[in-house]
Amino acid sequence: MHPSLLQDAGCPKEIPHNEKLLSLKYESLDYDNSENQLFLEEERRMSFLGFKCLEISRWVICGLIGFLTGLIACCIDIAVENLAGVKYFVVKQNIEKFTEVGGLSISLILWAVLNAAFVMVGAVIVAFFEPGAAGSGIPQIKCYLNGVKIPRVVRLKTLVVKVCGVICSVAGGLAVGKEGPMIHSGAVVAAGVSQGRSTSLKKDFKIFEYFRRDTEKRDFVSAGAAAGVSAAFGAPVGGVLFSLEEGASFWNQMLTWRIFFASMISTFTLNFFLSIYNKKPGDLSSPGLINFGRFESDVSVCLLLCGLLGALFNILNYWLTIFRIRYVHQPCLQVMEAMLVAAVTATVSFAMIYFSNDCQPLGPDQSEDYPLQLFCADGEYNSMATAFFNTPERSVRSLFHNPPGSYNPLTLSLFTLTYFFLACWTYGLTVSAGVFIPSLLIGAAWGRLFGILLASITPDGSIWADPGKYALIGAAAQLGGIVRMTLSLTVIMVEATGNVTYGLPIMLVLLTAKIVGDYFVEGLYDIHIKLQSVPFLHLEAPATSHWLTAREVMSAPVTCFNRIEKVGTIVDVLSNTSTNHNGFPVVVPVAMGKVCGLILRSQLIVLLKHKVFVELARSRLTQRKLQLKDFRDAYPRFPPIQSIHISQDERECMMDLTEFMNPTPYTVPQETSLPRVFKLFRALGLRHLVVVDSENRVSYCVH
Amino acid sequence: MHPSLLQDAGCPKEIPHNEKLLSLKYESLDYDNSENQLFLEEERRMSFLGFKCLEISRWVICGLIGFLTGLIACCIDIAVENLAGVKYFVVKQNIEKFTEVGGLSISLILWAVLNAAFVMVGAVIVAFFEPGAAGSGIPQIKCYLNGVKIPRVVRLKTLVVKVCGVICSVAGGLAVGKEGPMIHSGAVVAAGVSQGRSTSLKKDFKIFEYFRRDTEKRDFVSAGAAAGVSAAFGAPVGGVLFSLEEGASFWNQMLTWRIFFASMISTFTLNFFLSIYNKKPGDLSSPGLINFGRFESDVSVCLLLCGLLGALFNILNYWLTIFRIRYVHQPCLQVMEAMLVAAVTATVSFAMIYFSNDCQPLGPDQSEDYPLQLFCADGEYNSMATAFFNTPERSVRSLFHNPPGSYNPLTLSLFTLTYFFLACWTYGLTVSAGVFIPSLLIGAAWGRLFGILLASITPDGSIWADPGKYALIGAAAQLGGIVRMTLSLTVIMVEATGNVTYGLPIMLVLLTAKIVGDYFVEGLYDIHIKLQSVPFLHLEAPATSHWLTAREVMSAPVTCFNRIEKVGTIVDVLSNTSTNHNGFPVVVPVAMGKVCGLILRSQLIVLLKHKVFVELARSRLTQRKLQLKDFRDAYPRFPPIQSIHISQDERECMMDLTEFMNPTPYTVPQETSLPRVFKLFRALGLRHLVVVDSENRVSYCVH
Repeated sequence: MHPSLLQDAGCPKEIPHNEKLLSLKYESLDYDNSENQLFLEEERRMSFLGFKCLEISRWVICGLIGFLTGLIACCIDIAVENLAGVKYFVVKQNIEKFTEVGGLSISLILWAVLNAAFVMVGAVIVAFFEPGAAGSGIPQIKCYLNGVKIPRVVRLKTLVVKVCGVICSVAGGLAVGKEGPMIHSGAVVAAGVSQGRSTSLKKDFKIFEYFRRDTEKRDFVSAGAAAGVSAAFGAPVGGVLFSLEEGASFWNQMLTWRIFFASMISTFTLNFFLSIYNKKPGDLSSPGLINFGRFESDVSVCLLLCGLLGALFNILNYWLTIFRIRYVHQPCLQVMEAMLVAAVTATVSFAMIYFSNDCQPLGPDQSEDYPLQLFCADGEYNSMATAFFNTPERSVRSLFHNPPGSYNPLTLSLFTLTYFFLACWTYGLTVSAGVFIPSLLIGAAWGRLFGILLASITPDGSIWADPGKYALIGAAAQLGGIVRMTLSLTVIMVEATGNVTYGLPIMLVLLTAKIVGDYFVEGLYDIHIKLQSVPFLHLEAPATSHWLTAREVMSAPVTCFNRIEKVGTIVDVLSNTSTNHNGFPVVVPVAMGKVCGLILRSQLIVLLKHKVFVELARSRLTQRKLQLKDFRDAYPRFPPIQSIHISQDERECMMDLTEFMNPTPYTVPQETSLPRVFKLFRALGLRHLVVVDSENRVSYCVH
Repeated sequence: MHPSLLQDAGCPKEIPHNEKLLSLKYESLDYDNSENQLFLEEERRMSFLGFKCLEISRWVICGLIGFLTGLIACCIDIAVENLAGVKYFVVKQNIEKFTEVGGLSISLILWAVLNAAFVMVGAVIVAFFEPGAAGSGIPQIKCYLNGVKIPRVVRLKTLVVKVCGVICSVAGGLAVGKEGPMIHSGAVVAAGVSQGRSTSLKKDFKIFEYFRRDTEKRDFVSAGAAAGVSAAFGAPVGGVLFSLEEGASFWNQMLTWRIFFASMISTFTLNFFLSIYNKKPGDLSSPGLINFGRFESDVSVCLLLCGLLGALFNILNYWLTIFRIRYVHQPCLQVMEAMLVAAVTATVSFAMIYFSNDCQPLGPDQSEDYPLQLFCADGEYNSMATAFFNTPERSVRSLFHNPPGSYNPLTLSLFTLTYFFLACWTYGLTVSAGVFIPSLLIGAAWGRLFGILLASITPDGSIWADPGKYALIGAAAQLGGIVRMTLSLTVIMVEATGNVTYGLPIMLVLLTAKIVGDYFVEGLYDIHIKLQSVPFLHLEAPATSHWLTAREVMSAPVTCFNRIEKVGTIVDVLSNTSTNHNGFPVVVPVAMGKVCGLILRSQLIVLLKHKVFVELARSRLTQRKLQLKDFRDAYPRFPPIQSIHISQDERECMMDLTEFMNPTPYTVPQETSLPRVFKLFRALGLRHLVVVDSENRVSYCVH
């Protein structure tokens, strides 16, 4: 009973056991305009000036998106810095007090409790109010850009919970970063701003009404995601490439340029407000939430380290996630797990610091933010504490830039090992958190370790002396092994480093990490997308799928409507919950099922709601004609069919779909090979594709 | 008599007077695979391992493309440096000799003759051997990536002439750069390497046969163009973005990553060999032909200078080009014009240097390459000569980096003015030459001038003291105003500068330059594309084109073939020179013109050549079956129909097209709006699109 369409742009043959789940939980975005009569009339009425105005508003919106995203990043940064600052100050005071008199266990408890408390707040709001805000949100945004609508992913509530959640989890000392969530935040901002209204707040500004459809919204969400990357890493070009790499199926120059504009504004805003906050207005030295600092020297370090550790991380996290899906699905349990992780993180860190005897002299410039003396001599600090007793961002920077000799190899190996498992356990908790920074931190640690070992082996140690560069390369390798983004990650790393000459080694390392990692397991985001059973449309059809034809992969049988259809029939079809389909071919009845159009569920719902019946039109001549505005007002939360009351009399009326259906839907002959169909779906962002026979009749049509 | 197709992906309504010209001179590339039975059989036979091998060979080819492109760039650089070095040395000696004794006119003549001689060689090979190698080649590559096949643009001969030509014209002291031609060179390399044979040299290596079709070749050409940009500017990411911005209609992640790989290899190769040449192996400090040198300081200069000068340049060049098309089309005249420009350039430069009295003290580090003392005191050099008596690349770098006070304002204004007109006159000459460097040079000169003036006005001159930054911004504005590339140009500038912090000002300047410039006239490349009457497919359909439908824009009437067609009919249709079409819908005869496939002229030619006739197949049972290989061997230079002899008897035979036609061509209903059709063409890279009525019959079909 469902349409002859390759519905829900997935690859149904690959994961057949999930098919039912897929079609119920996730819907595809419609990147193809429904070019019905109303739409064409509106476009034809619009003057050249009108199009210019639309173009200008698109730019204005992108500017706004960039500005707001930058502002949010700024707020997160300030909040985290202050909260973490207070926490570390209190704990430091406490440790210093008890180092003399003994009883450091009290400090440990204080630290663990503080961490757990922060994380509890973060976990509670996520678990109980908006589970969609969990994690980094990058898999969800990947899906959205790919054309899959994940429920509630771009809501205002999600944004609020996300922002508060990420502040709590970073301040709570978890092995997480605040960068990933920025991408999600940017996307939500974009989805909100571009619609000119908030459905949650029930406020309609009556602006940007033209943009209330999937096509335009998705374009803006791309810009938002790019602005998020840009704010997170100070990498505007990286942001553009992220959006393109993950989402764009169709390269549009103007769109790309707008995305770039949003990214630029975003990093500029962040920079501007942070420099004011840091009382150095006009300095503009913090383009992103994380900045690796400038690497000056030009020695090209070609260190081909593999993505093995990244793959291991992914495999462990995969098992953990499956365990979580099975056993930890109660919100209370989730909150408790998050608190447990927070407490364990504090305990492990404390133990590592406590048993470490790696004392380093305090530099004259006091570059350490919270130097812990502990059992070291006066004028020295505990080196392990630099890595653990700090926000991860600062730890990464110190691993990159601290002079050779700041860490001894044992410290680094222990740190790598413990942080690896902590980060792996943390990702997937019910808190808002990113995996970028932990990955970088792990990689930086073993990269630096490798650099130190290499320097001790090679006779001429001078060239290989700076272990900070190895830390950078290691960070790239680890991150690449975990997330597997390629082009955009290279650019992000280069932009965050501020030195173009590292491009080649970084790129080689990322490529190796990707090849090695792909040999074992997919990227972390792809794993999570798969575990959520999202019908993700990959870049290309499987290589060996030329055997399959459109007829074999289409959903069949197909429900068709007549051009002039009985209201009762439509209501029955829409109410049928066993086939919850969203697009229906319209056929010419006399010609035995020849396609003449395509109508969407959402359009039918609006028609039913406004009772656009042939009989009523005749009797109520004064009734105004239905306009495109009515469809836009209902977007995107169309009411369910159950909420629309149709009386028994009305069921006997007829509805004329001619004006509202798309009279020129894309069609393919039923012998078309799967790769060809796939290319159409991917290149045009289709949601529905009608399969026809040589007579232009809908295949397997049921009326 | 031509097919019911929107042929030659252009916008026929816009430039109707050129329609005839367009369809004769230029053909569209076919980015859509013809999925006929042979193709499907081959794909189905291929194992998973086979696809892996193909994938690996794609990577190998991209690596090769990058390597060879880098090598060519290296050769060009070394040749230009040596030739120009010898020239400047000789002239300098001569000037020094005659400064004392008087009679500098001899030096002038020597300089002018040397210049003219170099340029003559360059112009002769271009004008007489390969006119396609003229100019920078960027408009042609833009067209190729857009899907228009410009004749002879990716031939080996073009490459050889291009490389020799650019060496001559830069050594000849014209106001040109060697960067633009690198992009063309990279593209030719790619087109050659990926095919595994050279048709010009009649050498077939029997490798990479799978890639002998438009789809694959175009992908590799994108990689080649990117490698060219990468080698020219040391900007691998910029190269990728250039290819995408100009060409890609369909974002393919793997392809992008391969393009990036080629770019990286290209810049690495150049760097490696140049560092060996400069006797500093392992230094790797010359990533591109031009490198702007590192800008260290982080002050963000937000200088919103407009693209007015760029637009003026374009308008002047437009008039000049029209003049050239009308009056200077004889090769001899073209060579003479080029020589004239060379002599005038030398004369003007000489005059400027001669009458300049801007003497600057020689620095201790001897940063000037050819310091001319002329009438200056001992230990001083003529500042005007730094700008004129030098290769343009060095002049740009000295404008960027020479300390404040190296130039006085008068020198800069005079230089800007003369160089502007010289560069404008030079672009479009029949020599291989790029416009990037002259544009940068003009912009850098007035940018520096602006900086000096601003510093003299503002009371606190210290912040605004470095005019080099204004030179950078001015260069960006001028180049942006002339070529109007946006995202890729930003990235290229940033990568060539080596400092990410200049991204925002550069981007703002480029955006302003684009908006201002677009108000007056199109970009230089677009002007030249239009003047060559290329049917270029822009990014989007004109905003107000919803009025038009597929029926109105299609070519009509349409020539159709039956599934089993008489050889005589096919030969007659193909021989008809008045309709030189390349795709023909195949219809089912009994069903009154219902579409069942699409066959290409090239396929028919191969079928006729191999005499694949129904009657012969029966009689000669031993004849081997035609394979895809036969089509690939004929690609891309299919013989004309006139060269195939068909006897009178054979004309009566029948041909069965079933196996060879594409049975699932894309079709659209005739009411489809133009923007929708446009999107299909653009997103799928189509060459032919069959317009059908509601009964699936070809519209306006003629048999």
